Amino acid sequence: MMDCAQTAALLRGWDRILILSHASPDGDTLGSACALMRGLVSLHKQVDFRCADEIPEKFTYLFQGIPLGGFSPEHILTVDVADLSLLGSLKGEYEGKIELAIDHHGTHKVFAERRWIEPESGATAEMIWLLLQELGVKPDKAMADCVYTGISTDTGCLRYRNATPRSYRIAAEALEAGADGAEINRVMWESKTRAQLEAERLILNGLEFFCDGKCAMLRVPRSILEKTGVKDSDLDGVAALPRQVKGVLFGITVKEKEDGTVKVSVRANPPADAAALCAKFGGGGHTGAAGCSFSGISLEEAAEKMKAASEEELLDAGY
Amino acid sequence: MMDCAQTAALLRGWDRILILSHASPDGDTLGSACALMRGLVSLHKQVDFRCADEIPEKFTYLFQGIPLGGFSPEHILTVDVADLSLLGSLKGEYEGKIELAIDHHGTHKVFAERRWIEPESGATAEMIWLLLQELGVKPDKAMADCVYTGISTDTGCLRYRNATPRSYRIAAEALEAGADGAEINRVMWESKTRAQLEAERLILNGLEFFCDGKCAMLRVPRSILEKTGVKDSDLDGVAALPRQVKGVLFGITVKEKEDGTVKVSVRANPPADAAALCAKFGGGGHTGAAGCSFSGISLEEAAEKMKAASEEELLDAGY
Repeated sequence: MMDCAQTAALLRGWDRILILSHASPDGDTLGSACALMRGLVSLHKQVDFRCADEIPEKFTYLFQGIPLGGFSPEHILTVDVADLSLLGSLKGEYEGKIELAIDHHGTHKVFAERRWIEPESGATAEMIWLLLQELGVKPDKAMADCVYTGISTDTGCLRYRNATPRSYRIAAEALEAGADGAEINRVMWESKTRAQLEAERLILNGLEFFCDGKCAMLRVPRSILEKTGVKDSDLDGVAALPRQVKGVLFGITVKEKEDGTVKVSVRANPPADAAALCAKFGGGGHTGAAGCSFSGISLEEAAEKMKAASEEELLDAGY
Repeated sequence: MMDCAQTAALLRGWDRILILSHASPDGDTLGSACALMRGLVSLHKQVDFRCADEIPEKFTYLFQGIPLGGFSPEHILTVDVADLSLLGSLKGEYEGKIELAIDHHGTHKVFAERRWIEPESGATAEMIWLLLQELGVKPDKAMADCVYTGISTDTGCLRYRNATPRSYRIAAEALEAGADGAEINRVMWESKTRAQLEAERLILNGLEFFCDGKCAMLRVPRSILEKTGVKDSDLDGVAALPRQVKGVLFGITVKEKEDGTVKVSVRANPPADAAALCAKFGGGGHTGAAGCSFSGISLEEAAEKMKAASEEELLDAGY
């Protein structure tokens, strides 16, 4: 286990560095990768980047102007990757070849030779900000935008419990270095396509309450994606909606995936425990947010199983 | 015009202080008032509070445990009040009697003998945090909760352009003093009643696009409030929705009020100008957010007028 200074010392001796982000990339894994690549380039190092999945269009600005590749990598590191399997389809290619992991997940499963892990960090991007300073890089506007994006997307723009006073202060420093926080937040939190809005409207029309309003369930059948033309990732936000209703302890979203499996997201309000509910079906997560999945059964069958299990869980817990 | 130190010096000499918040009270005017009252009480001063309108239930925790009143006021001050008329029905009673105004609005219209105005402050609550320190008060958890509430509610939890690095840093200090930021944000931003959700669903079902998707309009007829039982203030958030759709320059919300007038909220994305559009009907505001109102015509007639005017405005501006 290394700290920030040791990580910086290691990187100073490296060149031709490949940085890997996790599959289904989010603002933190991409913002962290891009901020670090920009810092390394400013130190006259060559960098390259890979991710198993396509970069969502709203994150492409993070990469703007970074000279990538043109070499075969001498060193490989991951950012914000909690588990080797999260490299997705790149896992096989890089297993055993990763020298350094920089991550903030408390659940990090060791896969790299060396690692710097800070579970108390709201976002990996916070760690990158400190690392840039340790490397003697004066962050420019582009680096600041990358770090701000990572912090904002992983902490719900500082709204969630994982945002610490340090998260706020690093966000403030990023703003002072030129980050356009308001615009980043508009794009990340207040921008959707007409198709997304239409899909959300159709999904919300099917919101169902049960257990005296203590549970709320949204169903996302494949037909809504086909009808509106949205992608799976366009609907990531809907899982947060059922829990927002006053009195709801379990907010459950059941989604039919392209391969026919059913993915369940559970959000819980205290004292309900989302992880305990999902554990009934081999899933896991945190008290506030957890997930599980079903194969070989229909969306409606999965919904019925979750309804029965959540009623039972509330009854057992005495709520 | 005074600064923070002069304001503290003035308050040190005062006792039996009445603090006024603006009508239709929000988290900043109430959080600022309550944080300051708590600070003054800790300095063994007597305080009292008034506001023309009822305190929304979600803000009542701000007041918990503050000993109020039991005296006739010797000094009267306002917090977050930009204009005497914003005292609402209390205006007549206090006109000419207000000794001090503490406010962060750039549009502040002088009505108090003395004032401390900081237009660059994201929230009045930030100024109160600095004032408490200047007064030698060490903020406790309750004061920190009040200040955090003010900052979060006025800056969209630091999402909007008015949040400065200082806003972030004061929020960080409030967290360190014990503010429960995550819970405050949950209540302020991620909590709605079933009735609110149902009303929003009905309103969104009527979302209309025109001008090739450059304009989006929501209608809020009285019937939706009657059907769902929500109050006008429960629907304050919907005006932000039409502008969130990609490609929309003017997001327009027309609301039928209880007295039969029609209130219009316009939100614009650059380069469109909400204030210019509302000025056509005697309204005003900022480039990004403005409003106007109509009397003597129906909701649908007002909607048609806004549609014609926004098409014309976009045409004139050449978009």
